[in-house]
Amino acid sequence: MREFKPLFDPRSVAVIGASRTPGKGGHILVANLVKSGFSGAIYPINPKAEEILGLKAYCSIKDVPEDVDLAVLSVPADVIPEIVHQCAQKKVRYLLIIAGGFAEGGEPGKQLQDKVIQNARVSNMRIIGPNIIGMISTGSNLLLTFAPFTTIRKGDVAIIAQTGAFCGAALHYLLSFSDFGLSKSIDLGNRCDLSESELLEYLMCDPQTHIIVLHIEGLADGRRFLETASLLSRLKPIIVLKFGRTEVASRAITSHTGALAGSEKIYSAAFKQAGLLRVDDLDEVEYVVRALKLSPPPHGNRVCIITFSGGAGAQAADLCIEKGLVVTGLSENTISKIESVSPPWMRLSNPLDIWPAIDKSGNATKTYFEAIQAALSDINVDMIMVLVNISYTLVTQSPVPEELAHTIELPLTKPIAICAIGDKSDLQRFEEAFNGKIPIYPTSKSCALALSKLSEYSSYRRNS
Amino acid sequence: MREFKPLFDPRSVAVIGASRTPGKGGHILVANLVKSGFSGAIYPINPKAEEILGLKAYCSIKDVPEDVDLAVLSVPADVIPEIVHQCAQKKVRYLLIIAGGFAEGGEPGKQLQDKVIQNARVSNMRIIGPNIIGMISTGSNLLLTFAPFTTIRKGDVAIIAQTGAFCGAALHYLLSFSDFGLSKSIDLGNRCDLSESELLEYLMCDPQTHIIVLHIEGLADGRRFLETASLLSRLKPIIVLKFGRTEVASRAITSHTGALAGSEKIYSAAFKQAGLLRVDDLDEVEYVVRALKLSPPPHGNRVCIITFSGGAGAQAADLCIEKGLVVTGLSENTISKIESVSPPWMRLSNPLDIWPAIDKSGNATKTYFEAIQAALSDINVDMIMVLVNISYTLVTQSPVPEELAHTIELPLTKPIAICAIGDKSDLQRFEEAFNGKIPIYPTSKSCALALSKLSEYSSYRRNS
Repeated sequence: MREFKPLFDPRSVAVIGASRTPGKGGHILVANLVKSGFSGAIYPINPKAEEILGLKAYCSIKDVPEDVDLAVLSVPADVIPEIVHQCAQKKVRYLLIIAGGFAEGGEPGKQLQDKVIQNARVSNMRIIGPNIIGMISTGSNLLLTFAPFTTIRKGDVAIIAQTGAFCGAALHYLLSFSDFGLSKSIDLGNRCDLSESELLEYLMCDPQTHIIVLHIEGLADGRRFLETASLLSRLKPIIVLKFGRTEVASRAITSHTGALAGSEKIYSAAFKQAGLLRVDDLDEVEYVVRALKLSPPPHGNRVCIITFSGGAGAQAADLCIEKGLVVTGLSENTISKIESVSPPWMRLSNPLDIWPAIDKSGNATKTYFEAIQAALSDINVDMIMVLVNISYTLVTQSPVPEELAHTIELPLTKPIAICAIGDKSDLQRFEEAFNGKIPIYPTSKSCALALSKLSEYSSYRRNS
Repeated sequence: MREFKPLFDPRSVAVIGASRTPGKGGHILVANLVKSGFSGAIYPINPKAEEILGLKAYCSIKDVPEDVDLAVLSVPADVIPEIVHQCAQKKVRYLLIIAGGFAEGGEPGKQLQDKVIQNARVSNMRIIGPNIIGMISTGSNLLLTFAPFTTIRKGDVAIIAQTGAFCGAALHYLLSFSDFGLSKSIDLGNRCDLSESELLEYLMCDPQTHIIVLHIEGLADGRRFLETASLLSRLKPIIVLKFGRTEVASRAITSHTGALAGSEKIYSAAFKQAGLLRVDDLDEVEYVVRALKLSPPPHGNRVCIITFSGGAGAQAADLCIEKGLVVTGLSENTISKIESVSPPWMRLSNPLDIWPAIDKSGNATKTYFEAIQAALSDINVDMIMVLVNISYTLVTQSPVPEELAHTIELPLTKPIAICAIGDKSDLQRFEEAFNGKIPIYPTSKSCALALSKLSEYSSYRRNS
């Protein structure tokens, strides 16, 4: 842990290649540091500038009067080996190299990258990159990236990404959801030195991080990764995006970060063994994070589907089962409770179609509440998926979100997820009503995916 | 066609069970008809009312002085056979039966439903339902449903659904996207008489409908459906949602509309043979409709992926290939065009990573334009998927959406789809800039799905 302090909680940061020109990477780096409220020392390095954004600029890293924990290099590839040499002499602890044009660009770039490593090794200075967008550590208000961010919401999710541009887009995407907050973000790019395994080891005991999102294209050391990930997964869930499954994608990966994508079959088995939660796109990251944040661990994979529509219930059942969940038989108690409030012709099972009961009672909120309570106390049920037509809230067919949210008592004894189907503009009201209590999903597919990953993770924890 | 005029373009509509109490189904039905601007005659039927919403009410359907083309029944199941009898005598042409509690509820309900059919047959009156939410025909401003809608956007998509509550939620969901417009919507419920095949036959020549969305749980007549769907698919794409793939869902379907879900294996093969585009959820309907509306038919399944990130490109390649597309080798001309604007170390292939070229030129819009033009004239490319980081639009790394949209000339010679990744709040600007020109998607997965369905449909049309 202490070893990573100069990276994630540095006393001082140097920006080599700091620029006075707004819009340039070397300018945004300094601006982001200032704006984000980083309280350590900031040293802009630019031989032609006196000061940048009100900060005294230095001609070279050697001229900085104090120790430098962390430096970021926003200069072209060809001058980097020399600057790395200077940083090593200055005993900089961590170095972020932004520029591309190294190992991913063929033999000359590979030689350049080798030289960088060689020059860094003399002082045990660690390198992140090259070919990255930078890093974020919200605990230290450290926003050290040339990507334009306005504010970064603090939270407990750490992101480790292989590639910078992807990481930037992912951050913007995920941070646009109000329930998503960040502890750390770092991209590894060509990963000439610092590896994903070392970062995972660090995150194991990082008190600010409870969920990890990992985007990798290849592994620096497969065995070490597996050992670390297996151990870390027992403590904190790891959501993983890994591509290069097809030959075309695998070739693309090698040509842009120099990594080897490796065999999909091996990865797939290894991820499963290590308890990693694999997803395919950023929306799926969003869905799984939401479920993990707001749910107690389920005791099994048996789901009760409560629905306003037989058709929607059948759909949800298919999607749940196809994702490995069991749409379980309900206990007699649950069935008789809901049958007692349904019309006499209604025969109930799972999915639990409460539309006739709502129609009879004229009070959707009450009927949803009764069904949820019955499922919560049903010993055959591990998780509850609640389908709601949010666009009927004008009339009595749908529950009033604020009232229904009020009936849910925390802490939950079983995961409950709501699939809120209907007009997208009504979704926000639902999300706000249940904010911090129950995860809300816009489709059955997203809800089934989230519950299946929750069950997958819980099963790994129980059995490892 | 003429046969369906009294259903979709009736001269007069009777609401049997019309109510004076706001919030009740029988009230919303009349209110929706009035609000939507239906220009035909409206006859509320209520023995206890003089008038409802300013319209003269009648004691019974028999008392209506004029012919009634279409009647909707908003009364409980047990009195329905008698009212059906009265409607048949009145020579009503089409009858919508809202109530549930028929064949889906076991033997007594089945007997009730049989009686309904029997009573209707004497006059050749056709029945839609029972167990439905009603219908919409935008060409006649006919909003005949108890579901609360404010306005329905006119357009060229027809929806046929098996189940009402699902149909209502689907309509609300789809109509919340500004590029989605409706021609007709109808749900069949227990489908005691009018079948999906008859409606598909009608839609074949309906000038207002160009895309069909079909939600079915079972088929009234498998052979007739297949013949009709195969023929209709050659003219207009049919997107299909069909569940009951698992045993649990199949049982759920039988218990809520009395339909038999049938064998998934047979359905899957039949859908393929008939050119149906099968999807799994409403978001997928949205994505495929958008692609179909805005794209010329592709000549094959070879896609060129233009990307701002090698990592995002690899992901898109995996997702496209896994959906049956080919991430093709690009022509030498395309490669050399983009290599000439890239840094010397950059080696290009497909996915076409233009980040280094953008970084070099400092003009993302121009670089995206050049790459799109090259792909448009590349004989190895049938479709173009463009990945954009929308949250970089503050700086030079991303294209300015309005400027890029301006460079796209219509009509397109090949499908182009943009995957706009990043802050969700920036998505709207992108969507507005490209509105009516290019379909915009929020994830790679959704974009790959849409392109794959486009290719699937085009291939069916070429080979049938």
